[in-house]
Amino acid sequence: MQSAKTERHIEAVNRQVDLHDPHGKHRVVIIGGGFGGLYAAKSLRRSDVDLTVVDRRNFHLFQPLLYQVATGGLSPGEISSPLRAVLRRQKNARVLLAEVTDVDLENRRVILVDGEVPYDSLIVATGATHDYFGNPQWEVDAPGLKTVEDALEIRKRIYVAFEAAEREPDPEKKAAWLTFVVVGGGPTGVELAGAIGEIAHYTLKHDFRTIDPGLARIILVEGMDRVLGTYDRSLSEKAKRSLERLGVEVRLNAFVTNVVSDGVTVTRDHTGTFVPARTILWGAGVKASPLGRILAEETGAETDKAGRVKVAPDLTIPGHDNIFVIGDLASFGHQGDQPLPGVAPVAMSMGRYVANRIDDRLRGKKSKPFRYFEKGSLATIGRSAAIAQFGRIKISGWFAWVTWLFVHLMYLVEFDNRLLVLMQWAWNYITRNRGARLITGKTGRLVE
Amino acid sequence: MQSAKTERHIEAVNRQVDLHDPHGKHRVVIIGGGFGGLYAAKSLRRSDVDLTVVDRRNFHLFQPLLYQVATGGLSPGEISSPLRAVLRRQKNARVLLAEVTDVDLENRRVILVDGEVPYDSLIVATGATHDYFGNPQWEVDAPGLKTVEDALEIRKRIYVAFEAAEREPDPEKKAAWLTFVVVGGGPTGVELAGAIGEIAHYTLKHDFRTIDPGLARIILVEGMDRVLGTYDRSLSEKAKRSLERLGVEVRLNAFVTNVVSDGVTVTRDHTGTFVPARTILWGAGVKASPLGRILAEETGAETDKAGRVKVAPDLTIPGHDNIFVIGDLASFGHQGDQPLPGVAPVAMSMGRYVANRIDDRLRGKKSKPFRYFEKGSLATIGRSAAIAQFGRIKISGWFAWVTWLFVHLMYLVEFDNRLLVLMQWAWNYITRNRGARLITGKTGRLVE
Repeated sequence: MQSAKTERHIEAVNRQVDLHDPHGKHRVVIIGGGFGGLYAAKSLRRSDVDLTVVDRRNFHLFQPLLYQVATGGLSPGEISSPLRAVLRRQKNARVLLAEVTDVDLENRRVILVDGEVPYDSLIVATGATHDYFGNPQWEVDAPGLKTVEDALEIRKRIYVAFEAAEREPDPEKKAAWLTFVVVGGGPTGVELAGAIGEIAHYTLKHDFRTIDPGLARIILVEGMDRVLGTYDRSLSEKAKRSLERLGVEVRLNAFVTNVVSDGVTVTRDHTGTFVPARTILWGAGVKASPLGRILAEETGAETDKAGRVKVAPDLTIPGHDNIFVIGDLASFGHQGDQPLPGVAPVAMSMGRYVANRIDDRLRGKKSKPFRYFEKGSLATIGRSAAIAQFGRIKISGWFAWVTWLFVHLMYLVEFDNRLLVLMQWAWNYITRNRGARLITGKTGRLVE
Repeated sequence: MQSAKTERHIEAVNRQVDLHDPHGKHRVVIIGGGFGGLYAAKSLRRSDVDLTVVDRRNFHLFQPLLYQVATGGLSPGEISSPLRAVLRRQKNARVLLAEVTDVDLENRRVILVDGEVPYDSLIVATGATHDYFGNPQWEVDAPGLKTVEDALEIRKRIYVAFEAAEREPDPEKKAAWLTFVVVGGGPTGVELAGAIGEIAHYTLKHDFRTIDPGLARIILVEGMDRVLGTYDRSLSEKAKRSLERLGVEVRLNAFVTNVVSDGVTVTRDHTGTFVPARTILWGAGVKASPLGRILAEETGAETDKAGRVKVAPDLTIPGHDNIFVIGDLASFGHQGDQPLPGVAPVAMSMGRYVANRIDDRLRGKKSKPFRYFEKGSLATIGRSAAIAQFGRIKISGWFAWVTWLFVHLMYLVEFDNRLLVLMQWAWNYITRNRGARLITGKTGRLVE
């Protein structure tokens, strides 16, 4: 039985305009609301297009600060902006919360789990994730850091480990709870290892009664002969020393060759050593999102060994000039060069480029090929420690850290008034506290 | 194979002092780190006792603001404080992250899932939860608001509903997605309904393209003839008008007699009406935590109909003068009076009382029976709307809201520098934004 009020409500809802009609405008569909997709969308704000941003999440995630969530320094809400809020005032844009399964090239439709969206131009920006080098079963015991859920899982494991150590009477088991292995010496691995070092030595210093968190062992395993391998060798060395000051053991030229729930096998010079450890975090490898491979198969495009789509100089898929691939999903390199790294500034730059390219086409203008102007690279190791490289200028230490903080907050502020994040940060810095170190989850139990 | 380094690490860990030895001091065990338990712990800071706080969560939750998390205004980390951080400097206290299953009265031990803790005095403060009046199966479709996980689930449902409505072509189904039913006109129900009203009319105003969120129907169902029944009748009337200004339909003398996944049956004057609704939130009933019933069975104590333990004038279980029950788990009333309400000020007051009582006993001093000095009650309806009652003084509207804000922040600040919360709030107030409106969960899918 429905009341008259219910019926009036339904009628009122029904009178709403349905924008599924494209108004005859050029339809641009962007898959993915990360840095690439979102900057493409924003750069199209004055263009005469009908724009749809499809994402399976309802928020843009400020990925470079995700390790802060994973270590209890910031809350997920502080490094995310609802996609609808970001694009609220952009009249030519709509946001669709949906999961993309395929692209129908012939009929120019993006296929969703529960529907489809027609396009004239398509921008694919679905990113990449970490890779377990053919051992996907390791993920259970060694989670990677890509989503908010990953970050909360890692946060839980780190803090549960100290809690379990506090209660464990057996000294060997206690030691395993107090051993943290981080796999991969790239930015994510370095940030995580550095943050755990801070947690052990400062944040939790006075928190326990039967353990000294400062006795925690943090081991960073890297296959190359240095950490942060995309930086200058002198900076890698400085980063390593900063990590060691935070109590991190850096093992270079070493590989994790097996992962089980209570430890890892670290192999160096063909000799494997089992390291008992209850917390193993994965920060290695790059694997393009599955849509890359699907697109490559359908278009005949090449992919690199990480599954990234090799794009033309204008970031289109060769032979498909209305399909752009940008960000971490794209493999873009001038002949013989290394492909551009999967970092936010590259994705943002690509997003702006394809927006302008589409706009130029609609106006009948020519565009130049994409070119990335190196803006410099920054990586942080921990409190007051970072390295930065701007062309020939190399800086490290406190000044690099402040630069890192400033650059990140500047971009974060663009989305919302994230000055509050700065203040939270300042507070954490002064007090060495991490107020967001909640152990949460389905049951909320200590060890599930 | 273990390296020499691993062995040294284990030895170092092993050398840590084990505080399981009670040093011969009077052992106080507090079960539960809510307002009651935490204030008891803090009030024992100068006492010559060996104190253990047992909680299955590693944080104290500022429950009165949990509805802000459920509606995307604040993040969980912003209304929680790690228990260890709160008690860090209190040398006589330790925190145990564990789940209590039973109390062994004869041997004075608290039984954990994985261990036990001996006590001389026991303070039980495990609180209460909502009650489905004999229909526990409704919880799946009508979640209540008690834990951080509950809040994130509700947040997800509220924002998924608008997303699903945006994509739903069928007008009846669209209307059901845009209908929100809140069961219970107490503080939680009123806060949730008011916040959803704000979200629909302000926060999401410009966010969608095929729906007008302002057309959302929000129905508050209350069995009594007024909302916020513990307040003066004039204030209940004011609260109702405030809710109506936010677009909430208040249905008094009405009961929810069935809950299914796509709607509820609302019964008034023996006539049931089915209201199609995809979001149903439960804010009704009180049920004591299971430990209350276990204790009552073992001690022969009486419980009230909500399962709360009827306590003696000194908050002990009659006949067991070393076991105290405080907070929402206790039913305390002078002869013939209504038992004290389950609110934070009562729990805090009880916590302080039992701490002093234990301290007095150890010093051989006598204590007076517990007396609660009414501090006044406050309830908020939404932006700029609240009611407050201090004895005969009754206030409502903006001034009551500012009072409410001030009182809550004052208590929140006690735990940590939560001025940041105030700033986040001020920002939300000015912009009407709710930046923490993330849809998160295991898969992160729109509808699982």
